[in-house]
Amino acid sequence: MIATPRLSLLLNWYANPYHTPLFMAHHLGFFKEEGLSPAIMETTDPSDVTDLIGQNRVDIALKAMIHTYAARAKGYQVVSVGTLFHEPPTGLIFLKSSGIKEFEDIRGKRIGYIGHFGRIIIDDLARRAGIRHDAFETVRVGMNMTDAIMNNRIDAGMGIGCFQQVELEQVSGQETDILRVDELAGLGCCCFCSILFLVNEVYLANNQDAVRRFMRATLRGMQWTLENPEKAYDLLCEQIPNLRTEIFRKIYISCLPYFSRDLINVDRDWEKVGLYTQQLGITNEHMSSRSCFTNDYLPERPYATLPPLDGTYISELQAS
Amino acid sequence: MIATPRLSLLLNWYANPYHTPLFMAHHLGFFKEEGLSPAIMETTDPSDVTDLIGQNRVDIALKAMIHTYAARAKGYQVVSVGTLFHEPPTGLIFLKSSGIKEFEDIRGKRIGYIGHFGRIIIDDLARRAGIRHDAFETVRVGMNMTDAIMNNRIDAGMGIGCFQQVELEQVSGQETDILRVDELAGLGCCCFCSILFLVNEVYLANNQDAVRRFMRATLRGMQWTLENPEKAYDLLCEQIPNLRTEIFRKIYISCLPYFSRDLINVDRDWEKVGLYTQQLGITNEHMSSRSCFTNDYLPERPYATLPPLDGTYISELQAS
Repeated sequence: MIATPRLSLLLNWYANPYHTPLFMAHHLGFFKEEGLSPAIMETTDPSDVTDLIGQNRVDIALKAMIHTYAARAKGYQVVSVGTLFHEPPTGLIFLKSSGIKEFEDIRGKRIGYIGHFGRIIIDDLARRAGIRHDAFETVRVGMNMTDAIMNNRIDAGMGIGCFQQVELEQVSGQETDILRVDELAGLGCCCFCSILFLVNEVYLANNQDAVRRFMRATLRGMQWTLENPEKAYDLLCEQIPNLRTEIFRKIYISCLPYFSRDLINVDRDWEKVGLYTQQLGITNEHMSSRSCFTNDYLPERPYATLPPLDGTYISELQAS
Repeated sequence: MIATPRLSLLLNWYANPYHTPLFMAHHLGFFKEEGLSPAIMETTDPSDVTDLIGQNRVDIALKAMIHTYAARAKGYQVVSVGTLFHEPPTGLIFLKSSGIKEFEDIRGKRIGYIGHFGRIIIDDLARRAGIRHDAFETVRVGMNMTDAIMNNRIDAGMGIGCFQQVELEQVSGQETDILRVDELAGLGCCCFCSILFLVNEVYLANNQDAVRRFMRATLRGMQWTLENPEKAYDLLCEQIPNLRTEIFRKIYISCLPYFSRDLINVDRDWEKVGLYTQQLGITNEHMSSRSCFTNDYLPERPYATLPPLDGTYISELQAS
């Protein structure tokens, strides 16, 4: 008997609104039309994803740009073949009632981070601000920043403005704020946190056409999502009912502007983050940004013809 | 550079209360003490799990007994090395307000099933009850039975009494009922739905010691869970905050009695389910139940010394 080989896809997080384009490509049969049968898996610990794709244990995985550099620095032959979500505002998130106003206020506070590199970023920001290493405490919280703040295990945590900050605001019913890493570190953008499609070079060498078909179906899912944002959210919730809450609906709307409309890896972003990872001591000057990504597996331009989402559109959705 | 190889563990469902022993073994360092570094992944479609373990894409996966027979019938060389959750009451779950009282009442109704084999079971029950194939409708709902009933996409669905029935009752605030498959089909037990630890024989041949160490750590996690049920639930929620709800707490308490205290594969259950899968036409008489499982990788008996959980204990918890 011959079994259909499955394409294993590992998400960077639990299935959530910013994965909508993938679930649309799945649900609407775009993957199937490309002859693909993806098995979409979630991680219970985001830090596991780099090892699993680096060790070629899954075919395609989602992870941020900074992790891609870190993976290659670790010797993992992983490469980004596209961008799902770009430049989400990322930073230190907290309740205004925490008394934190500027980064200097982390003195004496408990700061939550997702995984290893979040901690490196916090330590770097503290060094830039001249804050002693022992003047604050860091706590690893994985995917659970909001829960950790609500249960008083941390005072603030690293997260994404359109996700954890929205979640914290909704769950707490209080005012929140974010100190953006790009501003604190003078990066000009939060592209270090852009979420990418990673493959192992060993897998890619033997599956070039499958990757090309996967990205084509994903782009169709992306375009369908952006053209039918409300229907897309309903279809997402049908597949993942836990997301059918007002909080996740607000997160979805907040995430819409950060979807990559053409899935392209942006050279400028890779260069910026390349320099940032060098500053952080994650990579050295021998690391070439060009070795980390390729756009060769993305469809030709005609696919990407959507107008940018403007604020009006989003506020209409929010009002609805 | 040498990376620590990870042990990939794929759950049969989203992370939920009946996975607590695994998260305890992980959180309390039992896996680490065995030199293991598991990456725990969730599925977004339970039907994917059989292919992924059957194609040796993950190291260890959780799946039910009936799926293990089906996998081997399909030519997949998978074998169960232990039991996590045994004989959960499984059947047709519905709101009393649906008007369903006995199985005959499915005529004209929409019946939800999780995946392929749930549907085979429904069709078999209908045949036994002399209900025509076209007298009712079947709808595939995956992990989302309760959501599908609440959104009026189905009238009843196949599920587990200690999980989906509790969930439906809590979400709807109405009275629910279950028609147990073991009673309808005269099986004597719901062992076909027992949740097992599956490995691919190719993986097992090369990783016998790792599997042995995994099962030993898992048994410690199981025993810790049963000895500290409230603490275990708190630790689970710290790792998976989405589970910190009254509904999941009730599901957790309802699931406690079905945890396998020694993780052993029960020969009698395998034989019963072997006959059932033959009746269902999933296997034939050439399928040997002994080929589907082994207890050779479980720790020696001294580990399994817990008293059975009695009803008093559960009701105290519920009252608490």
